[in-house]
Amino acid sequence: MSAEKLRVVAIGVEAFDQALQDTGTPFVRLDWKPPASGDTDLVGALFEIDTACIDENGQSLVDKANRAVFDRILKGQPTLRRVLPAHQCIEGMTRTTILHAGPPIEWRDMCGPMKGAFLGAIRYEGLAGTDEEAAEMMASGKITYGPNHARNAVGPMTGMISYSMPVFVVENETFGNKAYCTINEGIGKVMRFGANGPEVIERLRWLEKEVAPTLDEAVRSMGGVNLKNIIAQSLAMGDEMHQRNVAASLNFYKAIAGPLHDALKGRENGTKVAAFVGSGNEQFFLNLAMAASKAIMDPCRDVPHSTVITAMSRNGVNFGITVSGLGQQWFQAPCLKPEALYFPGFSERDANPDMGDSAIVECIGIGGFAMGSAPAVVRFVGAGGLADAQRYTNSMGEITVGQNPALAMPNMDFAGVPTAIDIRKVVATGILPVINTGVAHREPGIGQVGAGIVNPPMTIMEDAVRAFAEKYAK
Amino acid sequence: MSAEKLRVVAIGVEAFDQALQDTGTPFVRLDWKPPASGDTDLVGALFEIDTACIDENGQSLVDKANRAVFDRILKGQPTLRRVLPAHQCIEGMTRTTILHAGPPIEWRDMCGPMKGAFLGAIRYEGLAGTDEEAAEMMASGKITYGPNHARNAVGPMTGMISYSMPVFVVENETFGNKAYCTINEGIGKVMRFGANGPEVIERLRWLEKEVAPTLDEAVRSMGGVNLKNIIAQSLAMGDEMHQRNVAASLNFYKAIAGPLHDALKGRENGTKVAAFVGSGNEQFFLNLAMAASKAIMDPCRDVPHSTVITAMSRNGVNFGITVSGLGQQWFQAPCLKPEALYFPGFSERDANPDMGDSAIVECIGIGGFAMGSAPAVVRFVGAGGLADAQRYTNSMGEITVGQNPALAMPNMDFAGVPTAIDIRKVVATGILPVINTGVAHREPGIGQVGAGIVNPPMTIMEDAVRAFAEKYAK
Repeated sequence: MSAEKLRVVAIGVEAFDQALQDTGTPFVRLDWKPPASGDTDLVGALFEIDTACIDENGQSLVDKANRAVFDRILKGQPTLRRVLPAHQCIEGMTRTTILHAGPPIEWRDMCGPMKGAFLGAIRYEGLAGTDEEAAEMMASGKITYGPNHARNAVGPMTGMISYSMPVFVVENETFGNKAYCTINEGIGKVMRFGANGPEVIERLRWLEKEVAPTLDEAVRSMGGVNLKNIIAQSLAMGDEMHQRNVAASLNFYKAIAGPLHDALKGRENGTKVAAFVGSGNEQFFLNLAMAASKAIMDPCRDVPHSTVITAMSRNGVNFGITVSGLGQQWFQAPCLKPEALYFPGFSERDANPDMGDSAIVECIGIGGFAMGSAPAVVRFVGAGGLADAQRYTNSMGEITVGQNPALAMPNMDFAGVPTAIDIRKVVATGILPVINTGVAHREPGIGQVGAGIVNPPMTIMEDAVRAFAEKYAK
Repeated sequence: MSAEKLRVVAIGVEAFDQALQDTGTPFVRLDWKPPASGDTDLVGALFEIDTACIDENGQSLVDKANRAVFDRILKGQPTLRRVLPAHQCIEGMTRTTILHAGPPIEWRDMCGPMKGAFLGAIRYEGLAGTDEEAAEMMASGKITYGPNHARNAVGPMTGMISYSMPVFVVENETFGNKAYCTINEGIGKVMRFGANGPEVIERLRWLEKEVAPTLDEAVRSMGGVNLKNIIAQSLAMGDEMHQRNVAASLNFYKAIAGPLHDALKGRENGTKVAAFVGSGNEQFFLNLAMAASKAIMDPCRDVPHSTVITAMSRNGVNFGITVSGLGQQWFQAPCLKPEALYFPGFSERDANPDMGDSAIVECIGIGGFAMGSAPAVVRFVGAGGLADAQRYTNSMGEITVGQNPALAMPNMDFAGVPTAIDIRKVVATGILPVINTGVAHREPGIGQVGAGIVNPPMTIMEDAVRAFAEKYAK
């Protein structure tokens, strides 16, 4: 027997792990639970799905639907087409519309950074002069707000998208749909972490007036930029495209450097724009990875019988998922705080619960799922050593439909990233999706205080399985 | 006992390898030979060195000297200072001086590509109008030629440096010495592979008139560019800096993009220069890695009692090394052909024997020595899978003095690159240094036909050990 085929799930006594490590045997550690948490009702739901959802030949309709979704993900070809003000491309944006990250949430229930971001976005749009006036507009229903995900959009952390904000327009060439995400603001005090002071608003105006128009001119002159190629190249360069976009940001700049140089000719302060795009921000590509992932995942929605997760997202209070066969319904529960490394001077006490639409990247198999290809991120998020990173990636293989060969990980002997999360497998194995994430301070205006790893709450996976059984297996 | 400490050298029956692989035990495979090839004379030389070279406390003078050299390598701080015509910075360059790669060689003994490069360099300098005239100048002694290494310089493949060619000036800040290398010409028909047609000469003129002056202006305005930082960052991005410089080239461009943009203002065809430096050539950084490595290794020369290799270099006919305690003496023997993957349409029949000064990068622990950190290069050079790459890197640990923590390999759990090759260890273990290399066509003017892995001939290691014993242990 070849030990290469041996896959060990370690349960119970942890002393056994050492023996597995000593012999180099790959293994996944589980906190032991009986299948589906020993919840007989839940075991019953999984059993019902397996037995009821079959075609005339006894083949699983769920497996077939999930394979179809997986194929759609593999066929996705996200291309950056334009950089436009949100109101010119996102449907239904009025001057008083503001979109946010995560599942729907009421103003009164929002966390501190999300509230801070809303107040800042209202002032940025010139709808109010002070935070007090802005808060009054939110409370009195003068602002229409809702999730980015409902408008084919995504945003990191607080995820603000308002009328004038420029967004990347990413087209999935294969299916013709478009997805949107704002331009990454850089680090420090930024609106995505809830900061809303004058320098934050000023930077957003500069993105709107200077950066976006030149980026748009450059991208248009090229006819588009293939983002999947950049993601693939950057996986070979140690990025996982969630907490590490060092190579991807450079590869994107490399792709547009010539046309951007031309677009900036004759403009004052062109060097500042080139430096911002080219070297000012190692997370510049994150927002492009998110828009690309959203463009890839949206055609996977509403496939009957599919148990594949089409979005994972957090609003700083609740973590929500949507599942292909269950349409637009959010399954949500309170977010967990990330297991994180904190920047000097900060600790877990300062951390806001998990936030942002960025976990869309894990849905296509990058981010935490590709950590084995990005050993340098492992220390940044406090996840241990290379072996741990590879263990994370291997364990994501347990809960996904297959590997994406177009997104190969040289560090994992060119295995494709684990792709298409199946809620049945999550519940049956007890292995939760792994998300690499930034951590915001719980007070608005302070910004990022760390980076780490977070899981969705298991209850939302269980709720989705129950709802699926209810819809398809009764 | 922890198996993590277990290091296995597999000798003899290869069936045993499978058991090691199955249990994940790291091992190095050796073709079994008695120590030092069973050459009792050579075993005697190693024994004499070990017993004769001791201080009053019985401590090895060789180990002490090697540790001193190792420390010098670790302390090296290569910084790009200028980009200047060779005659303005390399000592003794006259209008009729041409430097080449590898150990010294006579005109009549040179290989095809080297001859082609010489003829092209002479025409580029305007010293002859035709190849026939140029060949006549070489044959009649009108051209002074010799190795780059004797002038603190290095060059890839044929390694041509002539009077007007611009070179990178890299200063080792710690020791104050300077090293030189030409600007990488890009791929296709280029002089370093022996091509010498009109487009080759024209590109060299463009490098001289357009690229070098603007690069020099950008670099000077920054006060210099720290190359060690770029090498360290790029190791975390999957480069080994010999056959893969994808990330390093981008990181270098990122470092100079702003100042280069300023230097190009108002110049015609500035976009072409920016594109050449920024995205035209994924091996752009190779020549900077070489100059940085040369700047690091030159202060390691002439340390009495040190058995560390200070240069490995090939002229397309012979492979030569120099050893610290043995000064400028070359130990040389015929080059081997690389074990290579060939580009479509070419095969081993077309390959020129190994050529170039680029193996200087392996002397500081990058290139083939760092292959475990660059899994994407493994397939390019035809070296197998990730496990093979990590085995190469681990085996280089057997023949080096130590690891360089400033050049950490995230893919190898942040181990430092194996640094400072000890000829005693090479001869005693039979493990030869591993060099990643490009392969030139044996006819001049055709260019690169593949990439692969090559070793120095063992005889030069043995000759150096004998010479060392003769000098220090008699």
